Amino acid sequence: MSESRKLNLSDNLMKEIKFNDQGLIPAVAQHFRTGEILMLAYMNRESLDKTIETGNATYWSRSRQKLWKKGETSGHIQNVKQILIDCDGDSIVLLIDQIGPACHTGEAGCFYRVLADDPENARGGCAGCGGGSCCG
Amino acid sequence: MSESRKLNLSDNLMKEIKFNDQGLIPAVAQHFRTGEILMLAYMNRESLDKTIETGNATYWSRSRQKLWKKGETSGHIQNVKQILIDCDGDSIVLLIDQIGPACHTGEAGCFYRVLADDPENARGGCAGCGGGSCCG
Repeated sequence: MSESRKLNLSDNLMKEIKFNDQGLIPAVAQHFRTGEILMLAYMNRESLDKTIETGNATYWSRSRQKLWKKGETSGHIQNVKQILIDCDGDSIVLLIDQIGPACHTGEAGCFYRVLADDPENARGGCAGCGGGSCCG
Repeated sequence: MSESRKLNLSDNLMKEIKFNDQGLIPAVAQHFRTGEILMLAYMNRESLDKTIETGNATYWSRSRQKLWKKGETSGHIQNVKQILIDCDGDSIVLLIDQIGPACHTGEAGCFYRVLADDPENARGGCAGCGGGSCCG
Protein backbone atom coordinates (compact mmCIF):
# COMPACT_ATOMS: atom_id res chain seq x y z
CA MET A 1 0.00 0.00 0.00
CA SER A 2 1.62 3.23 -1.12
CA GLU A 3 1.62 6.13 1.33
CA SER A 4 0.86 8.46 -1.54
CA ARG A 5 -2.52 6.91 -2.34
CA LYS A 6 -5.62 8.82 -1.37
CA LEU A 7 -7.75 5.65 -1.41
CA ASN A 8 -7.08 2.35 0.32
CA LEU A 9 -6.84 -0.40 -2.26
CA SER A 10 -7.46 -4.13 -2.17
CA ASP A 11 -4.51 -5.42 -4.18
CA ASN A 12 -6.11 -8.84 -4.46
CA LEU A 13 -9.26 -7.45 -6.03
CA MET A 14 -7.21 -5.24 -8.33
CA LYS A 15 -5.83 -8.44 -9.86
CA GLU A 16 -9.36 -9.60 -10.65
CA ILE A 17 -10.19 -6.63 -12.86
CA LYS A 18 -10.74 -7.62 -16.46
CA PHE A 19 -10.20 -4.82 -18.92
CA ASN A 20 -11.79 -5.42 -22.32
CA ASP A 21 -9.88 -5.89 -25.58
CA GLN A 22 -9.45 -2.11 -25.77
CA GLY A 23 -7.98 -2.08 -22.27
CA LEU A 24 -11.10 -0.45 -20.80
CA ILE A 25 -13.64 -1.16 -18.09
CA PRO A 26 -17.02 0.59 -17.76
CA ALA A 27 -17.29 2.72 -14.62
CA VAL A 28 -20.68 3.85 -13.30
CA ALA A 29 -20.57 6.99 -11.17
CA GLN A 30 -23.27 6.98 -8.49
CA HIS A 31 -23.88 9.75 -5.97
CA PHE A 32 -22.89 8.31 -2.59
CA ARG A 33 -25.81 9.98 -0.77
CA THR A 34 -28.76 10.09 -3.16
CA GLY A 35 -27.99 6.90 -5.09
CA GLU A 36 -28.54 8.73 -8.39
CA ILE A 37 -26.61 7.27 -11.29
CA LEU A 38 -24.81 10.30 -12.69
CA MET A 39 -22.88 8.95 -15.65
CA LEU A 40 -21.17 5.97 -17.25
CA ALA A 41 -17.66 6.37 -18.57
CA TYR A 42 -14.62 4.18 -19.16
CA MET A 43 -11.32 3.68 -17.38
CA ASN A 44 -8.09 2.10 -18.44
CA ARG A 45 -5.53 0.87 -15.93
CA GLU A 46 -3.75 4.22 -15.84
CA SER A 47 -6.92 6.20 -15.14
CA LEU A 48 -7.96 3.75 -12.43
CA ASP A 49 -4.51 4.07 -10.81
CA LYS A 50 -4.83 7.86 -11.04
CA THR A 51 -8.28 7.76 -9.42
CA ILE A 52 -6.96 5.66 -6.52
CA GLU A 53 -3.90 7.86 -6.16
CA THR A 54 -5.78 11.17 -6.14
CA GLY A 55 -9.29 10.30 -4.97
CA ASN A 56 -10.70 12.25 -7.94
CA ALA A 57 -12.45 10.27 -10.65
CA THR A 58 -10.25 10.13 -13.73
CA TYR A 59 -11.52 8.40 -16.86
CA TRP A 60 -10.18 7.51 -20.28
CA SER A 61 -11.72 9.71 -22.95
CA ARG A 62 -12.43 7.47 -25.93
CA SER A 63 -13.10 10.43 -28.21
CA ARG A 64 -9.95 12.32 -27.27
CA GLN A 65 -7.87 9.21 -26.53
CA LYS A 66 -6.38 10.66 -23.38
CA LEU A 67 -6.75 10.71 -19.61
CA TRP A 68 -9.72 12.78 -18.55
CA LYS A 69 -9.84 14.05 -15.00
CA LYS A 70 -13.53 14.75 -14.55
CA GLY A 71 -13.99 18.47 -13.85
CA GLU A 72 -10.47 19.37 -14.95
CA THR A 73 -11.78 22.36 -16.90
CA SER A 74 -15.32 22.80 -15.48
CA GLY A 75 -14.38 22.38 -11.81
CA HIS A 76 -17.12 19.74 -11.52
CA ILE A 77 -14.88 17.16 -9.93
CA GLN A 78 -15.91 13.85 -8.42
CA ASN A 79 -14.55 12.93 -5.00
CA VAL A 80 -14.49 9.16 -4.77
CA LYS A 81 -15.69 7.60 -1.51
CA GLN A 82 -15.64 4.00 -2.59
CA ILE A 83 -15.05 1.83 -5.66
CA LEU A 84 -17.00 -1.42 -5.99
CA ILE A 85 -16.18 -4.28 -8.37
CA ASP A 86 -18.73 -6.72 -9.70
CA CYS A 87 -18.80 -10.50 -9.37
CA ASP A 88 -16.92 -11.18 -12.59
CA GLY A 89 -14.58 -8.20 -12.43
CA ASP A 90 -15.57 -6.52 -15.67
CA SER A 91 -17.35 -3.41 -14.40
CA ILE A 92 -17.00 -1.02 -11.47
CA VAL A 93 -19.16 1.44 -9.56
CA LEU A 94 -17.75 4.65 -8.13
CA LEU A 95 -19.59 6.06 -5.13
CA ILE A 96 -18.82 9.72 -5.39
CA ASP A 97 -19.49 13.16 -4.07
CA GLN A 98 -20.17 15.30 -7.13
CA ILE A 99 -19.18 18.96 -7.17
CA GLY A 100 -21.67 20.80 -9.42
CA PRO A 101 -23.51 19.00 -12.23
CA ALA A 102 -22.05 15.76 -13.56
CA CYS A 103 -23.44 16.23 -17.07
CA HIS A 104 -21.95 18.57 -19.66
CA THR A 105 -25.52 19.72 -20.47
CA GLY A 106 -25.81 21.27 -17.02
CA GLU A 107 -28.20 18.55 -15.81
CA ALA A 108 -27.29 17.02 -12.45
CA GLY A 109 -26.73 13.65 -14.11
CA CYS A 110 -26.57 12.33 -17.67
CA PHE A 111 -29.61 10.02 -17.44
CA TYR A 112 -32.30 12.68 -17.48
CA ARG A 113 -34.29 11.36 -20.46
CA VAL A 114 -36.88 8.60 -20.36
CA LEU A 115 -36.55 6.18 -23.27
CA ALA A 116 -39.39 3.94 -22.13
CA ASP A 117 -41.59 3.36 -19.12
CA ASP A 118 -44.25 1.08 -17.77
CA PRO A 119 -47.67 2.78 -18.01
CA GLU A 120 -48.88 0.52 -15.20
CA ASN A 121 -46.21 1.87 -12.86
CA ALA A 122 -48.31 3.99 -10.54
CA ARG A 123 -45.30 5.94 -9.34
CA GLY A 124 -44.77 7.42 -12.77
CA GLY A 125 -41.39 8.87 -13.64
CA CYS A 126 -38.39 8.11 -11.51
CA ALA A 127 -35.99 10.02 -13.75
CA GLY A 128 -35.74 12.94 -11.37
CA CYS A 129 -34.10 10.97 -8.61
CA GLY A 130 -32.54 8.17 -10.60
CA GLY A 131 -34.28 5.59 -8.47
CA GLY A 132 -33.19 7.27 -5.25
CA SER A 133 -35.15 8.07 -2.15
CA CYS A 134 -38.13 9.75 -3.85
CA CYS A 135 -39.08 6.39 -5.33
CA GLY A 136 -38.86 4.62 -1.95
CA MET B 1 -46.73 2.67 -30.69
CA SER B 2 -47.45 -1.01 -30.92
CA GLU B 3 -50.35 -2.33 -28.85
CA SER B 4 -48.28 -5.39 -28.01
CA ARG B 5 -45.60 -3.47 -26.14
CA LYS B 6 -45.51 -3.68 -22.37
CA LEU B 7 -43.53 -0.43 -22.09
CA ASN B 8 -44.30 2.92 -23.66
CA LEU B 9 -41.45 3.94 -25.92
CA SER B 10 -40.13 7.27 -27.12
CA ASP B 11 -39.45 6.53 -30.78
CA ASN B 12 -37.46 9.75 -31.14
CA LEU B 13 -35.09 8.80 -28.34
CA MET B 14 -34.79 5.26 -29.71
CA LYS B 15 -33.21 6.81 -32.81
CA GLU B 16 -30.56 8.46 -30.64
CA ILE B 17 -29.22 5.20 -29.25
CA LYS B 18 -25.67 4.50 -30.32
CA PHE B 19 -24.72 0.87 -30.22
CA ASN B 20 -20.96 0.25 -30.19
CA ASP B 21 -19.00 -1.44 -32.98
CA GLN B 22 -20.17 -4.80 -31.64
CA GLY B 23 -23.78 -3.63 -31.81
CA LEU B 24 -24.03 -3.39 -28.01
CA ILE B 25 -24.88 -0.78 -25.40
CA PRO B 26 -24.10 -1.07 -21.67
CA ALA B 27 -27.21 -1.30 -19.51
CA VAL B 28 -27.06 -0.62 -15.77
CA ALA B 29 -29.81 -2.28 -13.74
CA GLN B 30 -30.77 -0.22 -10.69
CA HIS B 31 -33.42 -1.17 -8.14
CA PHE B 32 -36.25 1.32 -8.60
CA ARG B 33 -36.88 1.65 -4.85
CA THR B 34 -33.54 1.31 -3.07
CA GLY B 35 -31.36 2.82 -5.79
CA GLU B 36 -28.90 -0.07 -5.46
CA ILE B 37 -26.96 -0.78 -8.64
CA LEU B 38 -27.55 -4.49 -9.14
CA MET B 39 -25.59 -5.32 -12.28
CA LEU B 40 -24.18 -4.09 -15.56
CA ALA B 41 -24.84 -6.08 -18.70
CA TYR B 42 -25.13 -5.42 -22.44
CA MET B 43 -28.00 -5.17 -24.86
CA ASN B 44 -28.16 -5.31 -28.62
CA ARG B 45 -31.07 -3.88 -30.56
CA GLU B 46 -33.01 -7.16 -30.46
CA SER B 47 -32.68 -7.54 -26.67
CA LEU B 48 -33.72 -3.92 -26.13
CA ASP B 49 -36.76 -4.46 -28.35
CA LYS B 50 -37.57 -7.62 -26.40
CA THR B 51 -37.26 -5.76 -23.09
CA ILE B 52 -39.66 -3.05 -24.28
CA GLU B 53 -42.05 -5.62 -25.70
CA THR B 54 -42.17 -7.84 -22.59
CA GLY B 55 -41.26 -5.51 -19.70
CA ASN B 56 -38.70 -8.10 -18.53
CA ALA B 57 -35.03 -7.19 -18.81
CA THR B 58 -33.46 -9.16 -21.63
CA TYR B 59 -29.74 -8.80 -22.34
CA TRP B 60 -27.26 -10.06 -24.89
CA SER B 61 -24.98 -12.67 -23.41
CA ARG B 62 -21.52 -11.96 -24.76
CA SER B 63 -20.17 -15.30 -23.51
CA ARG B 64 -22.99 -17.38 -24.97
CA GLN B 65 -23.67 -15.05 -27.94
CA LYS B 66 -27.41 -15.25 -27.53
CA LEU B 67 -30.37 -13.41 -26.06
CA TRP B 68 -30.49 -13.77 -22.30
CA LYS B 69 -33.75 -13.14 -20.53
CA LYS B 70 -32.61 -12.41 -17.00
CA GLY B 71 -34.09 -15.05 -14.67
CA GLU B 72 -35.08 -17.37 -17.50
CA THR B 73 -33.74 -20.38 -15.62
CA SER B 74 -33.41 -19.03 -12.05
CA GLY B 75 -36.75 -17.25 -11.93
CA HIS B 76 -34.93 -14.09 -10.78
CA ILE B 77 -36.53 -11.87 -13.36
CA GLN B 78 -36.33 -8.10 -13.60
CA ASN B 79 -39.54 -6.14 -14.12
CA VAL B 80 -38.63 -2.91 -15.85
CA LYS B 81 -40.30 0.27 -14.60
CA GLN B 82 -38.36 2.74 -16.65
CA ILE B 83 -35.45 2.95 -19.07
CA LEU B 84 -33.28 6.08 -19.07
CA ILE B 85 -30.85 7.11 -21.80
CA ASP B 86 -27.81 9.27 -21.22
CA CYS B 87 -26.93 12.59 -22.84
CA ASP B 88 -24.92 11.11 -25.68
CA GLY B 89 -27.07 8.01 -26.19
CA ASP B 90 -24.40 5.38 -25.57
CA SER B 91 -25.54 3.92 -22.26
CA ILE B 92 -28.85 3.20 -20.56
CA VAL B 93 -30.16 2.68 -17.03
CA LEU B 94 -32.97 0.25 -16.28
CA LEU B 95 -35.01 1.02 -13.18
CA ILE B 96 -36.24 -2.39 -12.18
CA ASP B 97 -38.06 -4.43 -9.60
CA GLN B 98 -35.84 -7.44 -8.97
CA ILE B 99 -37.35 -10.81 -8.11
CA GLY B 100 -34.86 -12.65 -5.86
CA PRO B 101 -31.14 -11.91 -6.02
CA ALA B 102 -29.75 -10.27 -9.15
CA CYS B 103 -26.32 -11.88 -8.85
CA HIS B 104 -25.55 -15.48 -9.77
CA THR B 105 -23.55 -15.75 -6.52
CA GLY B 106 -26.75 -15.35 -4.50
CA GLU B 107 -25.83 -11.80 -3.43
CA ALA B 108 -28.58 -9.23 -3.89
CA GLY B 109 -26.46 -7.36 -6.43
CA CYS B 110 -23.19 -7.97 -8.25
CA PHE B 111 -21.26 -5.03 -6.73
CA TYR B 112 -20.75 -6.48 -3.24
CA ARG B 113 -16.94 -6.17 -3.12
CA VAL B 114 -14.98 -3.06 -2.21
CA LEU B 115 -12.01 -2.49 -4.49
CA ALA B 116 -10.96 0.77 -2.83
CA ASP B 117 -12.26 3.30 -0.37
CA ASP B 118 -11.45 6.61 1.20
CA PRO B 119 -10.16 6.11 4.76
CA GLU B 120 -11.24 9.68 5.56
CA ASN B 121 -14.84 8.83 4.69
CA ALA B 122 -16.38 8.81 8.14
CA ARG B 123 -19.38 6.84 6.94
CA GLY B 124 -17.22 3.82 6.14
CA GLY B 125 -18.51 1.20 3.76
CA CYS B 126 -21.45 1.98 1.54
CA ALA B 127 -21.30 -1.36 -0.27
CA GLY B 128 -24.28 -2.77 1.59
CA CYS B 129 -26.74 -0.34 0.10
CA GLY B 130 -24.95 0.58 -3.10
CA GLY B 131 -25.14 4.24 -2.25
CA GLY B 132 -28.80 4.05 -1.38
CA SER B 133 -30.69 5.43 1.55
CA CYS B 134 -28.39 4.11 4.30
CA CYS B 135 -25.70 6.50 3.06
CA GLY B 136 -28.07 9.47 3.07
